[in-house]
Parts: sequence; structure tokens; C-alpha cells
Amino acid sequence: MKKLVAGIDIGGTNTVYGLVDIDGKIMAEGSFPTMKYQKFDLFLEALVHGLQLLQESVKEASELTGIGFGAPCGNYYTGRIEHAANLKVWGEVLPVAEKLAAYYPELPVVITNDANAAAIGEMLYGAAKGMRNFSVITLGTGLGSGIVVNGDLLYGNDSFAGEFGHIIVSPNGRECGCGRQGCLETYASASGIVRTVYKLLADHRGASELKAISFNELSADMISKAAENGDPIAIEAFAHTGLYLGRALADLVAITAPEAIILCGGLTHAGKYIFEPTYQHMEANMLSLWKGKVKLLPSELDDRNAAVLGSAALVWKKLIKNYKSI
Amino acid sequence: MKKLVAGIDIGGTNTVYGLVDIDGKIMAEGSFPTMKYQKFDLFLEALVHGLQLLQESVKEASELTGIGFGAPCGNYYTGRIEHAANLKVWGEVLPVAEKLAAYYPELPVVITNDANAAAIGEMLYGAAKGMRNFSVITLGTGLGSGIVVNGDLLYGNDSFAGEFGHIIVSPNGRECGCGRQGCLETYASASGIVRTVYKLLADHRGASELKAISFNELSADMISKAAENGDPIAIEAFAHTGLYLGRALADLVAITAPEAIILCGGLTHAGKYIFEPTYQHMEANMLSLWKGKVKLLPSELDDRNAAVLGSAALVWKKLIKNYKSI
Repeated sequence: MKKLVAGIDIGGTNTVYGLVDIDGKIMAEGSFPTMKYQKFDLFLEALVHGLQLLQESVKEASELTGIGFGAPCGNYYTGRIEHAANLKVWGEVLPVAEKLAAYYPELPVVITNDANAAAIGEMLYGAAKGMRNFSVITLGTGLGSGIVVNGDLLYGNDSFAGEFGHIIVSPNGRECGCGRQGCLETYASASGIVRTVYKLLADHRGASELKAISFNELSADMISKAAENGDPIAIEAFAHTGLYLGRALADLVAITAPEAIILCGGLTHAGKYIFEPTYQHMEANMLSLWKGKVKLLPSELDDRNAAVLGSAALVWKKLIKNYKSI
Repeated sequence: MKKLVAGIDIGGTNTVYGLVDIDGKIMAEGSFPTMKYQKFDLFLEALVHGLQLLQESVKEASELTGIGFGAPCGNYYTGRIEHAANLKVWGEVLPVAEKLAAYYPELPVVITNDANAAAIGEMLYGAAKGMRNFSVITLGTGLGSGIVVNGDLLYGNDSFAGEFGHIIVSPNGRECGCGRQGCLETYASASGIVRTVYKLLADHRGASELKAISFNELSADMISKAAENGDPIAIEAFAHTGLYLGRALADLVAITAPEAIILCGGLTHAGKYIFEPTYQHMEANMLSLWKGKVKLLPSELDDRNAAVLGSAALVWKKLIKNYKSI
């Protein structure tokens, strides 16, 4: 019987789930809008039903051997989702592992946030294969991070370590959703670069195709396109983003001495426009000890599959560890 | 036979060494000026001789079971001291573990830098007893850090993680010994606060007893004394130091989510003058998730013994782990 695990990513908009083999092959997958279900119990019931349908759709005989969850505010230690702003209609604390045990009493359930899941996904199936010390930075609407130390995720005392998006890079700087000011993610993220474009448009004269687009409409992908067209404001916006991100990564290197830092998420679709200034400023601000030694890499997971693969990798990592110790 | 380990701290000025039992009791200790010996081989020979004399001086029959080294640029992975500025007359790379094996072929040798040793010292014998996620910040001439994650030191890919003194807190700020500008240790350290006093004296008018002291003579202890006397410049200098340190610690919390941060070293002799502003700014800059939850503690190791105890703790930790796995 082919051993499979379930990888589940609960996002504010959609929940995606799949069955994944040990080599990272997604055998079947599905999704539904997270808020289709007004109660957490109904959501879980639908999810379990969805997993059963997936398993029936797999042609080979298969056995489900574990469940990995990526979810905002997923607590690895308690198996719960705690105080996730997007999921508050379901309650403040959602006991994922405990509730799943009613359906799958024998299976290990691993839960953490999506950036941590992405890090283990890269370690098992992507750009961090064979590495034991690295970080994954997700540049989406916000900035998330999964920091791997000596082969394991850095969870810290309460499981919520890795809030690298909320180091303060500019005291009294931009307002952040967390209620403070100057957090890294207000500069280095898909929403941060939109703010940077508007700052540049305010400060400078001269033509830019971005002047025709409203704040609400402007996306990181549009800014990438404009940069490819040679738009000076767009190129400058990426340079600013790389300045803030590169500096912060130099600090992350000083603290964690990783072999590599892997960037993923929407903003990385801009390719060289984001990687080049980021690497330049990371190198320029790094202690000489590490200059030229720390790789800055793009994700090697397909964006479309990364969430399911990362969540599945969480539990595969645990199972592989257990297999080895047998 | 009583099992003992040797704890050795190689400083730029003095090398201190001692024999330590599993409970952290220093049974005997010695020291000599590090640069008394012009060659590394002669230094080691003297050290081994010193350890033999110590062992003879212990009244109980004892057995040496391991050797722990704290040294600048001590590489845990290779067992060598690599490119330590203070020890360059002995060579760029000093193979400590390899050379000691000639004297003690059976014994485990553990080497790392002094801040990492201090962290394990606090974990076994000091303020971090029972903790698995915490950081120790040493505020001496520079700022060192030992970061413990899930019960083990964060060494990173090359063993040199934890250079928290070299995160850049002020781009284009103060010149640092590392060749860059604005590193945390140029503000938050015994030498940093001296610079801060001079900055304040330059910027402000009014009386201060510190005006009578030259830059070369001024020490952190003098600034503490002046603060105790109510000197406004001295008190303001500690407030500035706490601002930079507290902000940086809030970032360290965001990255590592520790249970506690422990401050040690010369600057902490100032007690409330350094702890209060540091804690205030750490709290003010922390994500709400952690507010009021992360302890800021003074070291519980006697300054005089901390270096020997920390180095001994490195190897006791390893031996205890091995004992447990038997």
C-alpha cells in the first residue's frame, strides 16, 4: 500500500488540500473557500470528507499516514490555531489536532504557520534540499519567515518564532497592521512595494505608467511589468524594497548564520528586479565573515503547489525521523 | 572517583581555567596571562600542566572527563580557533581539539565563543535553569550573544551564529571595529556607553561630573557611579543605551521567541540604570503577542567565575546528554 500524507493549507480565502507521497508527488488535490463554513466543526467535517474523496480518486491502494497543516497562527506545540485574525468567526482558539483525532485517532497531526511549512517544503522537495541551516522568506501580502536551525524549525518558547516581518527597520516608519510602525513587512512585501511606489510618486517628478493606477488597483505584478518596461519609478521601488530587505537579511545572517536564504511568494515573480538589489544590500551590510558565502535563492517549489507540499512536508519530516529511529 | 571537567576561557588578556563538578562547583582554578607564551604549542603545554597541578590540589580522588573551551572565534564544528584578532601571533587557525587530543586522547573537547559558553553556563547553573529557549547577551567591551533554541546553542551553518552585536541598528551610524557602521555594539556595550556620554556632552549644556574625565579614562563603572549620584548625563546615557538595546531585543524576540533574555557582563553592574530603560523599550517595541511575557533577567553566575563555569558547562551538557542516551 502506498503511504500518503495529507497536506492542508488554510488560507483566509481558500483552503487547499492534497495527498502527497514521500517524494513530494501530489497524487490528488482539492480546495474550497475557507469561509464557506460558518463553524469550525463543519469546516473540518467538509475537509475530512474532501480527503476521503481524494483518497478514493487515487488509483493505487493507499494508506493515509499523517496530516500536516499550514495555518495562520498555527501552534506547533498545542496543535491549535490561536487568535488568527482571519478565522475569528470560528473562535479564538481552534483545537485542530484534538478535533482531527476524532476522525483519525491513529495519525500524527502537525500544525504550524504557512511560512514554516514552506521552509520544510523547501528542505524536503525544493531549494533547501540537504541543508540544515537556512531561512525561507515569504514575500506575499505580508512577510513571513521559516527559520531552520540544525535541521529543525525554530519554534521558540511558544511556537511563534520567526516573525521576521515584524522586526522594526524604521522607528516611527510606516504604520503596520500589527499596530506598530516601521515593521519590515511594511516595506518588503507585495503590499509594501505598492506603498513605496506611492511614496516615490509623491517625491519625484517625471513620467511613470504607474501614475494611471489607483492605490487599490496597483499590484506587485503590475509593478514588475512596469519595471520590465523600463519604468523608472517601478525600478526604483524594487531598489528601495531590496535595500530594506537586504539590510534586514544581513542582520538575520548575523543572528542565524544560515547556508542560504530562500525567497518565495508573489513579489519574487519580479525575478532580478527584486533579487539583485536585495542581494547587493545584503552583501554590502554583512559582516566580512559571511560576505560571498550566504546564498540568496528563489524557491524551487511551484507556487501553485507550495502550500500543499509544505504542509505535507511537515508531517513527512516527522514520519521520516520516526522511521529512522526505528 | 569524582568526575570533573576542565573549563577554560581564553581571553585576550588572561586565560582562566578550573576544574568543575557536575553541580557547577569549582574545585580548583588558576590563570595566567594569555600572551605569556609566544607559541600556541607552548601555551597549551602550560595549560595542560596547570590542569595537572589543579587536579593534584583537589583533595578527593578525581577523574577528568572532558574539556570545555571558551575562546574568541572558537568553532564548535571544527574544534579550532579561527581568525581571532587577539590571538593572531599564534597563527590564523589554532587546532585546539586536535592538539589537546595528544594530551587527552580519550576526552571530549568542546569549543565555542565566550558568549555561547556563558549561555550554557546560565542554563546549567544560572538564570536559565530549566529553560530551552532563551538568549544570553554579554555587555562587555563589545556585545556578544548566545542563543539557545530548543535546548541547544544556535550555531548556524559555520558555528558563528549569534553575532547579535553586529546587527546594524543605525545605518551610517557609529564606526565599528568590524569595519562597518551602526552596529548594535557601538551603542550597547561598555565602550558604546562611553561614546554615548561624549555625544551627550557634545550636544548638551549643564553640569556633569563626567566632564572631568577623558575619553580614554572613562569606564562604564564610572558612568554607573555618576548615575547613582544623580548625574543627568550619566542617567541619559543609560537611557540611550537602553533604547538601542531594548529595540534590538524586541527584534530578537520576534525572530527567536525566547522565554527570557539574560543580560550579563560589565555594563549590567549598573543594575536598574541599564535594566529599566532596556526593558521599557523592549516592551514598547515588541509585538503585542509577546508583551509582558518575555523575562529580562540578570545573570545568576558570579562574574568572577562565569567564564570558567560557562566553559565547563559546555562539556557537562554534552556528557549529560551522552549519559542520558546510555
